[in-house]
Amino acid sequence: MTINVLGYATHSPIDDLAPYRFERREPRADDVVVEILYCGVCHTDLHMTRNDWGWSFYPLVPGHEIIGRVISVGPNVTRFKAGDPVGIGCMVDSCQHCKACEQGLEQYCEEGHTLTYNAYDRHDHRPTFGGYSEKIVVSDKFVLKVPDGLDLAGAAPLLCAGITTWSPLRHWKIGKGSQVAVIGLGGLGHMALKLASALDADVTLFTRSPGKEQDARRLGADSIVLSTDEGQMTAVKGQFDLIIDTVPYVHNLNPYLPTLSLNGTLVLVGYLGNLDPLLSTIPLLLGRKSVAGSAIGGIAETQEMLDFCGKHDITSDIEVIQIQDINRAYERMIKSDVKYRFVIDLASLKT
Amino acid sequence: MTINVLGYATHSPIDDLAPYRFERREPRADDVVVEILYCGVCHTDLHMTRNDWGWSFYPLVPGHEIIGRVISVGPNVTRFKAGDPVGIGCMVDSCQHCKACEQGLEQYCEEGHTLTYNAYDRHDHRPTFGGYSEKIVVSDKFVLKVPDGLDLAGAAPLLCAGITTWSPLRHWKIGKGSQVAVIGLGGLGHMALKLASALDADVTLFTRSPGKEQDARRLGADSIVLSTDEGQMTAVKGQFDLIIDTVPYVHNLNPYLPTLSLNGTLVLVGYLGNLDPLLSTIPLLLGRKSVAGSAIGGIAETQEMLDFCGKHDITSDIEVIQIQDINRAYERMIKSDVKYRFVIDLASLKT
Repeated sequence: MTINVLGYATHSPIDDLAPYRFERREPRADDVVVEILYCGVCHTDLHMTRNDWGWSFYPLVPGHEIIGRVISVGPNVTRFKAGDPVGIGCMVDSCQHCKACEQGLEQYCEEGHTLTYNAYDRHDHRPTFGGYSEKIVVSDKFVLKVPDGLDLAGAAPLLCAGITTWSPLRHWKIGKGSQVAVIGLGGLGHMALKLASALDADVTLFTRSPGKEQDARRLGADSIVLSTDEGQMTAVKGQFDLIIDTVPYVHNLNPYLPTLSLNGTLVLVGYLGNLDPLLSTIPLLLGRKSVAGSAIGGIAETQEMLDFCGKHDITSDIEVIQIQDINRAYERMIKSDVKYRFVIDLASLKT
Repeated sequence: MTINVLGYATHSPIDDLAPYRFERREPRADDVVVEILYCGVCHTDLHMTRNDWGWSFYPLVPGHEIIGRVISVGPNVTRFKAGDPVGIGCMVDSCQHCKACEQGLEQYCEEGHTLTYNAYDRHDHRPTFGGYSEKIVVSDKFVLKVPDGLDLAGAAPLLCAGITTWSPLRHWKIGKGSQVAVIGLGGLGHMALKLASALDADVTLFTRSPGKEQDARRLGADSIVLSTDEGQMTAVKGQFDLIIDTVPYVHNLNPYLPTLSLNGTLVLVGYLGNLDPLLSTIPLLLGRKSVAGSAIGGIAETQEMLDFCGKHDITSDIEVIQIQDINRAYERMIKSDVKYRFVIDLASLKT
């Protein structure tokens, strides 16, 4: 039997989000049914509701930073039981047999992973709906364990902002002695500071606006560089093994490339689009530097990150909101007026 | 006592190259004096004589693919003796103490390496002059041994075209089972095919013009992909661990990025300038792909490449010319009318 669920949906790119009733699938043998407690509000939710990338379909229920409690499990599920605190991130399925999936890199599934919302389930071809809702039904392979003791609301953004910054830190082998810089201090940027710092790297924040120093240091930055100050930029020339660029809109990468070390990499994690203005190859050739991209992270890696956060007591800095305030929260997010992530308390759905 | 040398120089961006007499420095204790036998003609020579990059100074004697025989050595030189066949590439000095130099990556010397021509010696501050000349005086650290049995004329282009393609092949750990593609079939491209093939990689040539198939296969390509054919490009989607892009002028990278494998890298080795049209980040993020640059190679790595070429009997495909034909050779090089490298026989200087 399908499960009737209340959530918040938008019905077109210009509509506000509003209450919406829909059906979740009848749980399959490997499914976990989860009561959603908290859901982070990601920049992607905004892009998707407004069809910024041209492939949204409606009605659309956003939300892919989900923390909840298991209500029930299918007969084939052994890793979870009713009452367990769990997380669900950006993906709810993948082909499970391509080269990427075999390496635990479901985010790069050759057949395309199934997004938590605005996608079609690969078995029953019904649309997927996200975490701005009461309950979700997800295959156990894509359900994460939340370590004991982690604040559940603050843990929600780990499922996207956390893993998206964790994955490049691990792929580029960041640890003690590494020089890491972060561009942008938003949802992703503040997690990058926390995680890189907990990995014992030397961490620098690039920012365009003064006045973020105190907060950045509290979050884990050892240094702050004003990217609009030529002198400060010159002072860090050749310094960074890895720059994590979290900016979600078009911006000029050229000023940052000379600050990469020999063999250094600038990895884009937040911007899908064209690099405008034109990217210069000169710093790339004259120091074997790279511009790379990275998208979220694999399921095993997400569990690793959650366990690491449990051990180091890392959660996101959040502002908890009621679901009824979601449209105002979007407006504030556009103005970067949030420190550093909105998280919806889904208990508010019942009021 | 300085050494009076005959060479070919240009005196402005629009002059032809013509005979020119100049002085080489009095050999220092660690110097090797070399009679130049052959010098390859690199695209860079053309850029530099014409001041395409804005930092040429005149008179300018080009040439950095030098093969010669040792005439004499300074008292501190133990690795070479008169009569030894030797090579000199793009660099003749570096700081020798920065992090890059300490790793044998003199090409990325933090203080800037000393180019073989159009630079100033870091000790006596006199201009350096290249291999379109009778003799050269070079610090022994920057002189390479040429393995026995290698054709000396064909070995000359190894000093730039060879090492420039060898270095990324080694840095990105190409070997048996690797999927390598090469963009462009010129001096660098044809060496990339030979070297990648000798490293047991599976090698593909991207080309815009049909009719290169037979030659490409002879040079080591297992497959040829016409980059203007959408069907052929789609057929190699996600295939290549490394693409070596040897094209020396502005060109569109976007069609190649989807042909990179997960974690794949497109490395630019021939183009200094802006990436026009705008580079899309979408394939980078959706497969953790990179666009990187690489410049020539270090001295130890150049020796490794020469030894590898000695073992596998690899030289460049060349057309030997007299120095008197150099201006015509430049005209032909612009039209890509050379298979695949001009090499000057410096014996012609005496005629």
